[in-house]
Amino acid sequence: MEIIEGGVTAAKGFTAANHAAGIKYTDRDDMAMIFSKTPCECAGTFTSNVVKAACVLWDTDIVKSGSPMHGVVINAGIANACTGNEGFEACIKTAEAVEEALGVPYSTVAVASTGVIGMQLPIDKIVNGVGALSNKLSDTIEAGTMASKAIMTTDTVNKEVAVTFTVGGKEVTMGAMSKGSGMIHPNMCTMLGFITTNLSISKKLLQKALSEVVKDTFNMITVDGDTSTNDTLLIMANGLAENKKIESENEDYVTFKEALLYVCENLARRMAADGEGASKLFTAKVVNAKTKEDARVLARAVVGSNLSKAAIYGCDANFGRFLCAMGYSGVDFDQEKVELYFESENGKEKVFDKGSLPEFDEAKAAEIMKASEVIVLIDMNDGKASATAWGCDLTEKYVEINADYRS
Amino acid sequence: MEIIEGGVTAAKGFTAANHAAGIKYTDRDDMAMIFSKTPCECAGTFTSNVVKAACVLWDTDIVKSGSPMHGVVINAGIANACTGNEGFEACIKTAEAVEEALGVPYSTVAVASTGVIGMQLPIDKIVNGVGALSNKLSDTIEAGTMASKAIMTTDTVNKEVAVTFTVGGKEVTMGAMSKGSGMIHPNMCTMLGFITTNLSISKKLLQKALSEVVKDTFNMITVDGDTSTNDTLLIMANGLAENKKIESENEDYVTFKEALLYVCENLARRMAADGEGASKLFTAKVVNAKTKEDARVLARAVVGSNLSKAAIYGCDANFGRFLCAMGYSGVDFDQEKVELYFESENGKEKVFDKGSLPEFDEAKAAEIMKASEVIVLIDMNDGKASATAWGCDLTEKYVEINADYRS
Repeated sequence: MEIIEGGVTAAKGFTAANHAAGIKYTDRDDMAMIFSKTPCECAGTFTSNVVKAACVLWDTDIVKSGSPMHGVVINAGIANACTGNEGFEACIKTAEAVEEALGVPYSTVAVASTGVIGMQLPIDKIVNGVGALSNKLSDTIEAGTMASKAIMTTDTVNKEVAVTFTVGGKEVTMGAMSKGSGMIHPNMCTMLGFITTNLSISKKLLQKALSEVVKDTFNMITVDGDTSTNDTLLIMANGLAENKKIESENEDYVTFKEALLYVCENLARRMAADGEGASKLFTAKVVNAKTKEDARVLARAVVGSNLSKAAIYGCDANFGRFLCAMGYSGVDFDQEKVELYFESENGKEKVFDKGSLPEFDEAKAAEIMKASEVIVLIDMNDGKASATAWGCDLTEKYVEINADYRS
Repeated sequence: MEIIEGGVTAAKGFTAANHAAGIKYTDRDDMAMIFSKTPCECAGTFTSNVVKAACVLWDTDIVKSGSPMHGVVINAGIANACTGNEGFEACIKTAEAVEEALGVPYSTVAVASTGVIGMQLPIDKIVNGVGALSNKLSDTIEAGTMASKAIMTTDTVNKEVAVTFTVGGKEVTMGAMSKGSGMIHPNMCTMLGFITTNLSISKKLLQKALSEVVKDTFNMITVDGDTSTNDTLLIMANGLAENKKIESENEDYVTFKEALLYVCENLARRMAADGEGASKLFTAKVVNAKTKEDARVLARAVVGSNLSKAAIYGCDANFGRFLCAMGYSGVDFDQEKVELYFESENGKEKVFDKGSLPEFDEAKAAEIMKASEVIVLIDMNDGKASATAWGCDLTEKYVEINADYRS
């Protein structure tokens, strides 16, 4: 596998565009489109929140129907959640505008929204925006990047990634973009993410790979514990790489899944690091846990704890907060077995040793915690399962952003 | 029932004292004792965190053993959690010091700690402190207040309350004190709380009343979602009111339980309002839910959401965040039935109406949210159960406090 430049337009046959529709922001792009003239197999994972945005319902229908997918229209500014029938109608009208402009059935067009919950989309602006986007579609790397930037909300960093890998002698490309900075919590993909590939693969295996990879990547990040109404991760595979179609869990499938894992982990880590107000990436690695699920729950509890996040921000090796978070996670364990380390590019220090308190160097621990990624390594000494979760520190800036969000 | 002045020394037979032992703070009191020469029936509820502080284990043993309780020694500064055998030995030595000073069996003396996790208590200072406390015990209101203030950590307000009520023609008094500001989350009492009463009641009914009342009071508050290792709520009843001993769920029991509910709710609300960095009390009232448990879960999810808390701080009627929190709470419901209001002493405004978006006055909503208590009233229109949860807003100050806590 090789990492290459670009994002959603890296794979052959995929185009993208950006547009300033004036939905809520007046000074920036707020719409994007990804489009493949060749119909794609598609798969998706969506929020577990029972309050689902209209676009989540629409996309779920498409993914479940078995129909191909040609593209997705995305807007920032308004989430189209808690908007009733009028909200769902807006999804249909958006897809119909694509049908009119590009001649693909409206039932093959996904939509995705991010922004304020509880406002109706200005549908005229959206429909006009679809027209503008359709005219601007381009397969350049630049077009993918501009589309990715157009859907940022409180994100401070553009997040896209692309890779190539070889399947059955054919070079396959996969590119992706995602946004997400607040209202991020691991109960599905917790953000908007779009992956495009020219791989040829059955819909069933595309969905299987995506669902499995999500568990260890997007579902393992948290910024603020708030699971959004709009979380959507879509993958589209148009088959233009002309590899022998993957229809069983063979070697090709494994190769693809590894690449997918890389792409999703790369974006997930970057979303955590770009959490609202974050000054650093906060990683919890749990090793030697009894079960995989225990390891996941423990790792997520640690990166999800406000007190742990504040300690990471303050470079305070206050390890008790991490043990406390593990303790209320719901996993049963014996603290007499647990070892806890702080680790970063600046070094590694054990701070808790199976129920006892080792002498440790506070100054060194603080130095370790000053790095841009701080790892809390937790050895449960109780099995063989491991998991990693990613979060960020909690800063005054997070509060500022969220006390002011709509103003 | 009448509200009277005072706290843990309000009821006849209870004394208290405060002391500066220099455990961690150098400029303030950090130890307190509550003592009744007359042996008390006792009951308690403790943290659900699997990482339990040594003192929680010790007190649980006493409450379960059926032995009477004479008092409790409390310290602030160090939590005595994650401290292994040495930590448990410290509890025994503290209780033994009380036996030596006051002549009651050490097995009747509870201990409670709050502060940094993962440090050993300076046991010599604690033992000397017990000597000093024993000499200072007093039944004045002032003594109760000083004891209550001695165990504050990041609390900014002292929290005590006392009431009188009549049981079988006898006047009974009940007083209480509590501390808790950070690491507060409803999974038991989430703080230290001590209730004293001269009521005569069986141990079984004392525990029953406490366990039930906790569910609707201390377990319904949250500051930061972090369930402490040390949460302890103890009630001691010495029987000196000479009422006919309550041994069944009769009218007297109901009268007592009502008073207990008042005392616990009073303290719980004040703890939420005094949450670390809080500028206001944030109350979620869920009505007409399918089940009591649904109502509790929904109310707690709303006051526990960082995004909702930040919106309350910013006086931003961003009601979608509240619906979003309800949606990921784990309760299944239909947003088409839900009505949501903001309410305070400044007025009441409906902002969500069964899936549709009513026109509402943003300026008025902001005005409502400027009050010192903001209520989010949620009508599920789906049953008859209701519950109230209390939290606080999320401010920059919370982050400052917790990034610096140990320094």
